[in-house]
Amino acid sequence: MSKLFNVAVIGATGTVGETLVQLLEEREFPLLNLHLLASSESVGQSLPFRGKNVRVRDIDAFDFSQVQLAFFAAAEAVTLSYAPRAQAAGCSVIDLSGALPADQAPRVVPEVNAEVLASLAVPVQVACPNATATALAVVLAPLRSLLTVRRLSVTACLAVSGAGREGVAELARQTTELLNMRPLEPRFFDRQIAFNLLARTEPIQGTGHTRSELQIAADIRHVLADDALKVSATCLQAPVFFGDSLSVTLELVSAVDLLAVQAALEAAPGVELVDSDDYPTAVGDAVGQDAVYVGRLRSGLTDDAELNLWIASDNVRKGSALNAVQLGELLIKHYL
Amino acid sequence: MSKLFNVAVIGATGTVGETLVQLLEEREFPLLNLHLLASSESVGQSLPFRGKNVRVRDIDAFDFSQVQLAFFAAAEAVTLSYAPRAQAAGCSVIDLSGALPADQAPRVVPEVNAEVLASLAVPVQVACPNATATALAVVLAPLRSLLTVRRLSVTACLAVSGAGREGVAELARQTTELLNMRPLEPRFFDRQIAFNLLARTEPIQGTGHTRSELQIAADIRHVLADDALKVSATCLQAPVFFGDSLSVTLELVSAVDLLAVQAALEAAPGVELVDSDDYPTAVGDAVGQDAVYVGRLRSGLTDDAELNLWIASDNVRKGSALNAVQLGELLIKHYL
Ligand SMILES: NC(=O)c1ccc[n+]([C@@H]2O[C@H](COP(=O)([O-])OP(=O)(O)OC[C@H]3O[C@@H](n4cnc5c(N)ncnc54)[C@H](OP(=O)(O)O)[C@@H]3O)[C@@H](O)[C@H]2O)c1
Ligand SMILES: NC(=O)c1ccc[n+]([C@@H]2O[C@H](COP(=O)([O-])OP(=O)(O)OC[C@H]3O[C@@H](n4cnc5c(N)ncnc54)[C@H](OP(=O)(O)O)[C@@H]3O)[C@@H](O)[C@H]2O)c1
Repeated sequence: MSKLFNVAVIGATGTVGETLVQLLEEREFPLLNLHLLASSESVGQSLPFRGKNVRVRDIDAFDFSQVQLAFFAAAEAVTLSYAPRAQAAGCSVIDLSGALPADQAPRVVPEVNAEVLASLAVPVQVACPNATATALAVVLAPLRSLLTVRRLSVTACLAVSGAGREGVAELARQTTELLNMRPLEPRFFDRQIAFNLLARTEPIQGTGHTRSELQIAADIRHVLADDALKVSATCLQAPVFFGDSLSVTLELVSAVDLLAVQAALEAAPGVELVDSDDYPTAVGDAVGQDAVYVGRLRSGLTDDAELNLWIASDNVRKGSALNAVQLGELLIKHYL
Repeated sequence: MSKLFNVAVIGATGTVGETLVQLLEEREFPLLNLHLLASSESVGQSLPFRGKNVRVRDIDAFDFSQVQLAFFAAAEAVTLSYAPRAQAAGCSVIDLSGALPADQAPRVVPEVNAEVLASLAVPVQVACPNATATALAVVLAPLRSLLTVRRLSVTACLAVSGAGREGVAELARQTTELLNMRPLEPRFFDRQIAFNLLARTEPIQGTGHTRSELQIAADIRHVLADDALKVSATCLQAPVFFGDSLSVTLELVSAVDLLAVQAALEAAPGVELVDSDDYPTAVGDAVGQDAVYVGRLRSGLTDDAELNLWIASDNVRKGSALNAVQLGELLIKHYL
């Protein structure tokens, strides 16, 4: 019999945490005991796992020496508080919050830079990149041998679930208010998100960019190991519950061979290419699926050294929970 | 007393047509008789104008020699059928449909290339550019003396009203079905638009681009008189009733002076610049307003010869009806 592991999920009651627990079951993660952790507010709740209800416990009282691996799927502050404790107890950490610095916890997308996992110290610390960067990396990696990208320009239309349960609840509430002709008072978002688009998902930083936009640039360069890549990113909040849509322009050093790009994407792991007479959408295709969907592949309108494409991806799955579980599968193979 | 004109509005019962009629009233267009035209289906309807109800008439029975100016705010096919008739009757034409070729009907944005109007033959034919191109031109024109744009990359998140009354009705219907947990059958759009984003607004052409994307590139080059400008455009359909949102990246030949750009935009006609600690939205700011709103002005994340910005604009007003009425105001000054 192969080895079984004790695992903790922090933030188990959240949008990402619940999906992560489902994926551990679906993908038959070699689990002995599963510990579901959240804040003290969730104590008493339980989640279904392998036909049983597993109780949610308070992270504060948790002894990390009981587990070999912990998935941190709560806010950044929670990772920053508890990951050191986990590590001190010899527990490896997969950070889904992006809180740990990249030099301590490299950002890894299994389809792209799994080789990074070969050289880490135990207990391991590794992180999922920003969800948009992950989707981009899955699509760009198989094209590396075909084309040299000078600039990547992405407009990411992000689902409200990217902001967790409260984002989802707010879009539903606002939409209902508006359809019932009741006056709208924005609460969770800073203004009307229903039937509207917000120009950013977070407050801006000093330079005018948001944290997610900075993360996209840093993470995509890190994962593709390409520090010279120019990145332009705009993250907007779309009135969509689940699934991110990315409009991408790649500026290349030479004319693009569309057929070769198509062939490479068709063969690429984790990618589903949709014919150019059709197109994928977040809700209709990507949500609930493992693959990152690519469509509207075309060379530039006015420049044949340009490639345009559209990506639809499940922000909660490949954007976070699925990528983390894949990392877990690799970690136990290499280290645990 | 100054001269008064007889004017026809074709497509008066449509999304653009109704707004156009309102604007003719609001802006005190020097009108003697207003003729509202639509298809035979609308005969019997009427629209309010200057405190009276004006009856809608069938375009088929209309004698264009009764008017000096006709606004074509119906489908392209309607312009192609009836604009020659108008012209033969000595009536000047403002084409809001983009049907007439640019060499016969130049695309004009009054704030940008009004000088084109000085050299046309009477009866005049002139057209509004694609709505996205118009918003872009209003914002880029005041920056021409400050920066040289090598490439303009835009992701246009377009409101369903861009597809007319049927687009608006379909988003409302789909949203209600979904909130009431009823099964969804897309009708007007080819799939679910409620709480989703569609990767295009129209079928693609041979090269992989849509008609609107091709129009944006052609119209922005034409209006800015810059044939060397590289343009990359993606038009996506957003679940928004009114108001377009544009995410824009400009690649420049040299580092950008943000303060100078800010000052130029603050002084520019038809532009409302929003501070970078805030941002405009289509629904919250642009809809119902004449100005094109600009926000999230910032230099590139990884390249200081890059400028990123966000534009929110009323697709029905400046995108179409307002621009057309402004053109009408100039035409009567110059020609009629
Ligand atoms: N949603 C996405 O698409 C997405 C994508 C990529 C990355 N992420 C990242 O994933 C993480 C979780 O996001 P989410 O969307 O799942 O958020 P969420 O739906 O708001 O859930 C937050 C989770 O964190 C738990 N939590 C809150 N305070 C805690 C504390 N003090 N100690 C322990 N647990 C605590 C919550 O438990 P209680 O019920 O007890 O409050 C809940 O389980 C975030 O870092 C987010 O940035 C999310
Ligand atoms: N909506 C926008 O944001 C926008 C922006 C820029 C440009 N445009 C362009 O403006 C034009 C009108 O768009 P819209 O959004 O207002 O469309 P719409 O809401 O669908 O209205 C269409 C109008 O055209 C009339 N029409 C249809 N068939 C006709 C015919 N055979 N003869 C005369 N009139 C006819 C309709 O009258 P009935 O009621 O009799 O059918 C209605 O008044 C289109 O060319 C569109 O591309 C629209």
